[in-house]
Amino acid sequence: MSSTAKETATANGIGYPTTVNSPSGRPTFIKRNPHLSGKIAIEEHVNTNIFNSLSTNPYTKGSNEGWEGTYYQKAFMEDVQYRLGNIEERIKQMDAAGIAIMALSLMSPGIQGIFDPAEATETASKVNDQMHKLYRTGPHADRFLTWGCVAMQDPQAAAMEAERCVKELGCCGILINGFSDVGSPDAGDVRYLDEPQCEPFWAKLAELDVPLYLHPRNVAPTQSRVLRGYEFLAGSPWGFARETAEHVLRLMLSGLFDRYPGLRIVLGHCGEGLPFAIKRVDHRMRHFRKGVSGAHQHPLSHYFAKNFWITSSGVLTQSTLECTIREVGVDRVLFSADYPLEDVIEMADWFDGLEIDDPTRAKLAYGNAKILLGIK
Amino acid sequence: MSSTAKETATANGIGYPTTVNSPSGRPTFIKRNPHLSGKIAIEEHVNTNIFNSLSTNPYTKGSNEGWEGTYYQKAFMEDVQYRLGNIEERIKQMDAAGIAIMALSLMSPGIQGIFDPAEATETASKVNDQMHKLYRTGPHADRFLTWGCVAMQDPQAAAMEAERCVKELGCCGILINGFSDVGSPDAGDVRYLDEPQCEPFWAKLAELDVPLYLHPRNVAPTQSRVLRGYEFLAGSPWGFARETAEHVLRLMLSGLFDRYPGLRIVLGHCGEGLPFAIKRVDHRMRHFRKGVSGAHQHPLSHYFAKNFWITSSGVLTQSTLECTIREVGVDRVLFSADYPLEDVIEMADWFDGLEIDDPTRAKLAYGNAKILLGIK
Amino acid sequence: MSSTAKETATANGIGYPTTVNSPSGRPTFIKRNPHLSGKIAIEEHVNTNIFNSLSTNPYTKGSNEGWEGTYYQKAFMEDVQYRLGNIEERIKQMDAAGIAIMALSLMSPGIQGIFDPAEATETASKVNDQMHKLYRTGPHADRFLTWGCVAMQDPQAAAMEAERCVKELGCCGILINGFSDVGSPDAGDVRYLDEPQCEPFWAKLAELDVPLYLHPRNVAPTQSRVLRGYEFLAGSPWGFARETAEHVLRLMLSGLFDRYPGLRIVLGHCGEGLPFAIKRVDHRMRHFRKGVSGAHQHPLSHYFAKNFWITSSGVLTQSTLECTIREVGVDRVLFSADYPLEDVIEMADWFDGLEIDDPTRAKLAYGNAKILLGIK
Amino acid sequence: MSSTAKETATANGIGYPTTVNSPSGRPTFIKRNPHLSGKIAIEEHVNTNIFNSLSTNPYTKGSNEGWEGTYYQKAFMEDVQYRLGNIEERIKQMDAAGIAIMALSLMSPGIQGIFDPAEATETASKVNDQMHKLYRTGPHADRFLTWGCVAMQDPQAAAMEAERCVKELGCCGILINGFSDVGSPDAGDVRYLDEPQCEPFWAKLAELDVPLYLHPRNVAPTQSRVLRGYEFLAGSPWGFARETAEHVLRLMLSGLFDRYPGLRIVLGHCGEGLPFAIKRVDHRMRHFRKGVSGAHQHPLSHYFAKNFWITSSGVLTQSTLECTIREVGVDRVLFSADYPLEDVIEMADWFDGLEIDDPTRAKLAYGNAKILLGIK
Repeated sequence: MSSTAKETATANGIGYPTTVNSPSGRPTFIKRNPHLSGKIAIEEHVNTNIFNSLSTNPYTKGSNEGWEGTYYQKAFMEDVQYRLGNIEERIKQMDAAGIAIMALSLMSPGIQGIFDPAEATETASKVNDQMHKLYRTGPHADRFLTWGCVAMQDPQAAAMEAERCVKELGCCGILINGFSDVGSPDAGDVRYLDEPQCEPFWAKLAELDVPLYLHPRNVAPTQSRVLRGYEFLAGSPWGFARETAEHVLRLMLSGLFDRYPGLRIVLGHCGEGLPFAIKRVDHRMRHFRKGVSGAHQHPLSHYFAKNFWITSSGVLTQSTLECTIREVGVDRVLFSADYPLEDVIEMADWFDGLEIDDPTRAKLAYGNAKILLGIK
Repeated sequence: MSSTAKETATANGIGYPTTVNSPSGRPTFIKRNPHLSGKIAIEEHVNTNIFNSLSTNPYTKGSNEGWEGTYYQKAFMEDVQYRLGNIEERIKQMDAAGIAIMALSLMSPGIQGIFDPAEATETASKVNDQMHKLYRTGPHADRFLTWGCVAMQDPQAAAMEAERCVKELGCCGILINGFSDVGSPDAGDVRYLDEPQCEPFWAKLAELDVPLYLHPRNVAPTQSRVLRGYEFLAGSPWGFARETAEHVLRLMLSGLFDRYPGLRIVLGHCGEGLPFAIKRVDHRMRHFRKGVSGAHQHPLSHYFAKNFWITSSGVLTQSTLECTIREVGVDRVLFSADYPLEDVIEMADWFDGLEIDDPTRAKLAYGNAKILLGIK
Repeated sequence: MSSTAKETATANGIGYPTTVNSPSGRPTFIKRNPHLSGKIAIEEHVNTNIFNSLSTNPYTKGSNEGWEGTYYQKAFMEDVQYRLGNIEERIKQMDAAGIAIMALSLMSPGIQGIFDPAEATETASKVNDQMHKLYRTGPHADRFLTWGCVAMQDPQAAAMEAERCVKELGCCGILINGFSDVGSPDAGDVRYLDEPQCEPFWAKLAELDVPLYLHPRNVAPTQSRVLRGYEFLAGSPWGFARETAEHVLRLMLSGLFDRYPGLRIVLGHCGEGLPFAIKRVDHRMRHFRKGVSGAHQHPLSHYFAKNFWITSSGVLTQSTLECTIREVGVDRVLFSADYPLEDVIEMADWFDGLEIDDPTRAKLAYGNAKILLGIK
Repeated sequence: MSSTAKETATANGIGYPTTVNSPSGRPTFIKRNPHLSGKIAIEEHVNTNIFNSLSTNPYTKGSNEGWEGTYYQKAFMEDVQYRLGNIEERIKQMDAAGIAIMALSLMSPGIQGIFDPAEATETASKVNDQMHKLYRTGPHADRFLTWGCVAMQDPQAAAMEAERCVKELGCCGILINGFSDVGSPDAGDVRYLDEPQCEPFWAKLAELDVPLYLHPRNVAPTQSRVLRGYEFLAGSPWGFARETAEHVLRLMLSGLFDRYPGLRIVLGHCGEGLPFAIKRVDHRMRHFRKGVSGAHQHPLSHYFAKNFWITSSGVLTQSTLECTIREVGVDRVLFSADYPLEDVIEMADWFDGLEIDDPTRAKLAYGNAKILLGIK
């Protein structure tokens, strides 16, 4: 299967795609290009039958399931649920959209929403095993990669599970859905990845040399005065992006990337707003006092350009994509869809139709993913 | 004074700018363009001797003064304080940067940080009078416009003061620094502009048909779990932008722009991140249930393109500016500096050197401001 | 008929376009936008039954018909011929593509290819009358405008006919297909529009204050050594663009726009390459001696930004369009198709799908054309 | 020497460039970045004392010297002549502009302007030897590379000399200044590189696997009717670009890149206009008859993206550079200056100030050149 649709043999012998079914049926006019084949999409979701990964456990009002049940149209959520676990439907959609490979992860909040550390750890292990069995063996094994999940509620255990994921299950990396719930559901305590307890996990990740996908998790609406009365914003892309971007800023400011300069973090949704804003944050922080603003040793945009890879998951706006590329360069931006929350055909229609040069399209579509995830 | 530096008469008689002081002193090479003259900058700040507009009153830890005292280098803050009230220095900087006119406003939080409604109302009136006297009369009266300030702690009074500002003092519009403090400083209650009590103010603003500048105010760091340990982010451009953008989303979702379709809101800092994100919020909200997501009748990007004008205040990144222009179009984006927090020469160096076409530069530099503010 | 397809009422009541026939049939997903309606296309061609406007008269090898007969697929040329004169097919295509109005002109070389001045003059008059009768009266009169044609072989007569076109026939302007053939077909003499004899025509055009569309004409392949053996390049868009761009440079260098600073020239095909190159020509000419390089008084890009309007006729490349916009600004670039050489549905698919902001799209689609051509 | 100026250690310890000499002398404001160091510029010219490479031999009116003597200001041409052969001045300018390495070539028309094949062949050999001695040995040998020159007036000899250049003199590739003069100066005969006689040269070049720089040569003004009266256009960037672009089209249409698919051609001046136009040429050629339009087997843009590398020599326009990048991708575009016709400081000021992401800047500044020319 050729990697581009644009070099098809044609009627006049000089390689121009051609004829019969032009938009208006005129002779010798061009046929609309089919989807670019060979794409790799790396922020694509599944569920398992092990637990309800869309909800915290125990259930809390601010969890994914909570607001999705409240705000989304019923037909949409039913369709999403149907697709999360249906492998054949997924393959059919991938074929139609020109997606050769999907790197799969557990729906948010997933393991991060399990308050009990022991249960979280044990569940992560079961999920990794099941995802491996379902997607990495069998007739479609060459169409899928898996992101391992880990329980940051117990960072030592998370480090061990990460090692098992990479070395035994062949996971392409680890995906974490933002902060982890810890302690009592009523207390609202959470753990962010820059907290000191997480150090063993980062040390292991650096040793394993695989990327970490920092996937959004909806923030509890009670966390923000400005959202009162508009709680659904917390669970919309707006709230996801804000929470995740601020999680990233914590990582940068903690000095994490000075301690582990080789870490590779993947962000979805065109970098959760950071490409638009990060230069201005740096621009202001140049006036800050020494030492008061964080443990980092470089401007934030330094880490952003060096330690981060960005996917276009959920984005259908060329100016947003271009703003992202102009911050981190074409070698660090990757196509993704966010299936089944998004429709892969809609996403592919947009991406394949973008007027970018073919070499850049090839990088975004599969080239950069092959390098990042070590795909041969 | 010609409005562009590019049409100077020259040595060879065909209008090419030329010679003597080229970068390397070579003959007949081009001279670097001086600043484009005639620029209008509309998010520029002053203080008065009436009260300390950088602090809440009474003082609270999260106020502007609080974090500026804590985080900024002393030399920077002293320089800012010196420049806030020095008219001659301001004129000197404007001349050097090619800024013909500044539209001035009171430093944040200003009136919005005065907890007592009566005191807020009275102070707003005094500030408006003093700003008028200092900047709209005297030798430099043709170099300044003023944004009126109002006390949203008492919306009825705010409506009356807005009318006085426009009709008696000739203000170019009203500028509000985000939410208003109300009640007890300990309670942390605030008022957002979409709340029902604000209706009389909006009705008056629509009647007066002047723009409202929604300027950022730093959010209290206690408002966000993710910022714990990194409180300075709340007062950095990151926190400003987040708080202001979410305030804007509240306005849109409240149906305000359906009730008053002619309202004109001005945002600084390239739209506080909204140009990057708003299409994706809409993209997801298409799946929302009827009626649960707000009282608005159109996609959010509809209001953004119709009711909003955006300035480049504080921005020095071309990709951010271009992303903004590609969301709202060249007729709604305006140059601004954010003096004296920013340096007008640094901002002008960047803006005047941007490789955009001359007609677009003229729109951004002064053309759009003339239309928005009714400058002859 | 609303001017944008994006504000349709929808299922969930908040204005999001929606559902049933999404690309993959999923519920609550978005429907692909239909064409933007209301577009105005201004480089659209017809023929008449008065003479064969695709050929010189007498026939010469380098004329349009010559190379089209030699190089183009037969089915394509038959289809073009069929569409040139078929009004009902044209209306059907316009409706399908969302084109409200076409400004029509005679196929190249048209009048410019008639060697005998008296015959050229008389033919121009007949063509203008017939085009008026066919397209400006009758059931579709509100869908068409016409560009007048004139015989520059007799500039005095051309001036008179231009006046008749504008004042009596209501033409939106004058369109000229490049150089005019004069004298003996064997001699290869031609007249360019900067030649002194043309002055009466320019004086009249300035007085009438209507735009002139400078449409390409294929250059004779004998005119260029480098094309020997590849003569078809002269009649391809490459040769058209080169010839027309150099004709434009002649106009600029002749001082025409200094003598008539209000002249408005329209170019097709994204400015025939000039937006990409003109700054570099200026950049080098700054080193030229006084007076040797032309009679012009300003850099060439000065005239390009001030006296020229550019259409996207025949262009389907976003980077080419953006390069054009960045040279002359969004108020001087206009959508066009080049029907029936191009397919209006193919062109509209591309243009309507371009990810540009809605205000800019509206300017390019119809707003700028309304201003340029005085359409109410 | 670090490759970027943006990571300097600074006053507040977090890597933000800082202070004392900000544009307006304010404390803690940013200092303007010095030039990016480490740049490689590959279209840079020298002369030798072997012959006058700016003239044809014998002299013809249309040669470089002819129009330069006629049109350029005397001070400019004297300065160019002074700099062509002055190594120390060159090094000084390179240091000031942050250019680590220049790949040097003989000024146009060079060997291509010598009508006698034997003399051309002999002169090429002498020039290659002298350039090697002057620039590839001695104290600055690590600052220069050389492009070999060859006499296409005798393609067999050119093939042999190319081999000697690469294998014995270590040239980074071969540079040819467009068409070669052959036969009698009065006849105006020339040889283009797609002509059958050139085959032995191309076979050798493919075997040597080094790039060929196709540098412009001014076209004789007599070659174009449209330039009559404006002959200087032929020798301006306009004429250079047209002639060279059409030479490229000849190469593509001849099937050269189908016979030698690994050939690497370098073009200067942002691709001589081709990035703006080539898609439209393809767009039209899809309607051409089989076999009549050339011996090529793919659309022209296929070869352009696969066999061509483009430098920014002589270009100071961001939109032109971006249009180029969007046609061939960031891995095939390279910074160059065109010294001493251009000023390296002026070019570096522009290039280093371009608001592109740092990884892309590094590719354009030196990364792509290292790969193309095999620089360690």
